[in-house]
Amino acid sequence: MKPTLTVACIQFEPKIGDVARNVEESAARIEEAADHDAKLIVLPELCNTGYVFDGRGEALALAEETDGPTIARWTALAADRDLHIVAGFCEKDGDALYNSAAIIAPDGLLGIYRKTHLWDEEAVIFERGDLGFPVFRTAVGRIGALICYDCWFPEAWRLLALQGAEVACVPTNWVPMPNSEHQPLAMSNILCMGAAHANSIFVAAADRVGTERQQPFIGQSIIAGPDGWLMAGPASKTDPETLYAACDIGAARRSRTLNAFNQVLRDRRADLYGEMLGSDAEPSWY
Amino acid sequence: MKPTLTVACIQFEPKIGDVARNVEESAARIEEAADHDAKLIVLPELCNTGYVFDGRGEALALAEETDGPTIARWTALAADRDLHIVAGFCEKDGDALYNSAAIIAPDGLLGIYRKTHLWDEEAVIFERGDLGFPVFRTAVGRIGALICYDCWFPEAWRLLALQGAEVACVPTNWVPMPNSEHQPLAMSNILCMGAAHANSIFVAAADRVGTERQQPFIGQSIIAGPDGWLMAGPASKTDPETLYAACDIGAARRSRTLNAFNQVLRDRRADLYGEMLGSDAEPSWY
Repeated sequence: MKPTLTVACIQFEPKIGDVARNVEESAARIEEAADHDAKLIVLPELCNTGYVFDGRGEALALAEETDGPTIARWTALAADRDLHIVAGFCEKDGDALYNSAAIIAPDGLLGIYRKTHLWDEEAVIFERGDLGFPVFRTAVGRIGALICYDCWFPEAWRLLALQGAEVACVPTNWVPMPNSEHQPLAMSNILCMGAAHANSIFVAAADRVGTERQQPFIGQSIIAGPDGWLMAGPASKTDPETLYAACDIGAARRSRTLNAFNQVLRDRRADLYGEMLGSDAEPSWY
Repeated sequence: MKPTLTVACIQFEPKIGDVARNVEESAARIEEAADHDAKLIVLPELCNTGYVFDGRGEALALAEETDGPTIARWTALAADRDLHIVAGFCEKDGDALYNSAAIIAPDGLLGIYRKTHLWDEEAVIFERGDLGFPVFRTAVGRIGALICYDCWFPEAWRLLALQGAEVACVPTNWVPMPNSEHQPLAMSNILCMGAAHANSIFVAAADRVGTERQQPFIGQSIIAGPDGWLMAGPASKTDPETLYAACDIGAARRSRTLNAFNQVLRDRRADLYGEMLGSDAEPSWY
């Protein structure tokens, strides 16, 4: 038996504007996950504030810097219960606002990821992320974070894998996608599963549920293994739920070797991809 | 009603080494698809020769240059029935061997795509593709081709979309992937669906069936729309079958605009992706 790490995704329903209540609910659910031996815990996007701000002013009033009380509460829990936590929060940095994820270890805040690809009205509220796609080398594995619409960009997953990530943690607030009503999986699930497989990484995506100011969210949190298949979930479309999976983190690297000839990251043909993917060269899609 | 194009994927079972028989079977199935009003027809990888060569010598003896009888037969059919055809064949070019796809219009061969990412023992038989990811601007739409293991590389799909492709045609010989036995979709299906959605393109993947020299193939051909969902298939895991879908080709471009702020190709953050994706910069995944 290979050693395993219990990964948990906490799906719940934040209430817009009620930071104290949201952080306390997240804390209670983190404690519960710790009681189930979870060591790496993922929480939804913007889970301390809620998502549908009525404008930049509301978001600014609710946002915190990284030394604020939300991060303080989560880091105290991580220290107390020996946890790694990846959680979405509303970040203020001077006069800039970011849709961010905190990456927290038992000995404190390791760093943050700022959502790179903003969705819809987020463009009114937030600055675009400016930190690239950092990978954090923790005691439980090499961890990266993506947030919601970032999952639509295969470049982002690939950059995490190329930098050594074994687990992509996805705080998210997925909204309904077209023509998905009667499908067994959400399209966001399919994007996560394909990315897990094509990069040989674990993907732990924690979504929220509920409807906020007319905006519905779809739940269906998942944990996928490096073969792409689901280890846990999809969670409920409507109700809070915590997913657990026992992950052999080394499998992410080990299973990249597919046969005597193929290793899925080494097989990339960067020589042929050229500069179009990572440059501002004019595309011809319009 | 928007005008639609009937796309067909022909799934069948080539027999190793019997080129005359395989091409005649492909021709009969192309005629049948034309009778069903198909205008863009995709056939499997290496469908004129079969797949599991016993060595480079056997492949070389069966391979043809682009002016050989296989392409001649398909181009004659395309002219006779007003078809566009994308079909996998074993290509010889001097002393080089490629796992290629012919892109054929009613007025002749438009060009070829050579498989970029070789799978397993193909490395013994074939040269790696050296033509990049060409997009052909045809009367029925802008068409690109990927072959089998190419689908594992999100870079390839993205480069087709960035160059204007509306349809990715995938001649393939999918083999079983780990832990897939009891899943409702093949992992290759999930990769195609995610790529269709994330790039807003149609994906038409024509697989083969049967077991050749102990190598099983999985069928499950599909046609996915630009929303990622299946328009046809998955086809049988074991039997020949032709899939049809009526595709509004303009929808590929039209549906890239997701809301007032987002267009999925325009939202790429090439400034942050940097040079790692398209260069030989050392990754840190090992």
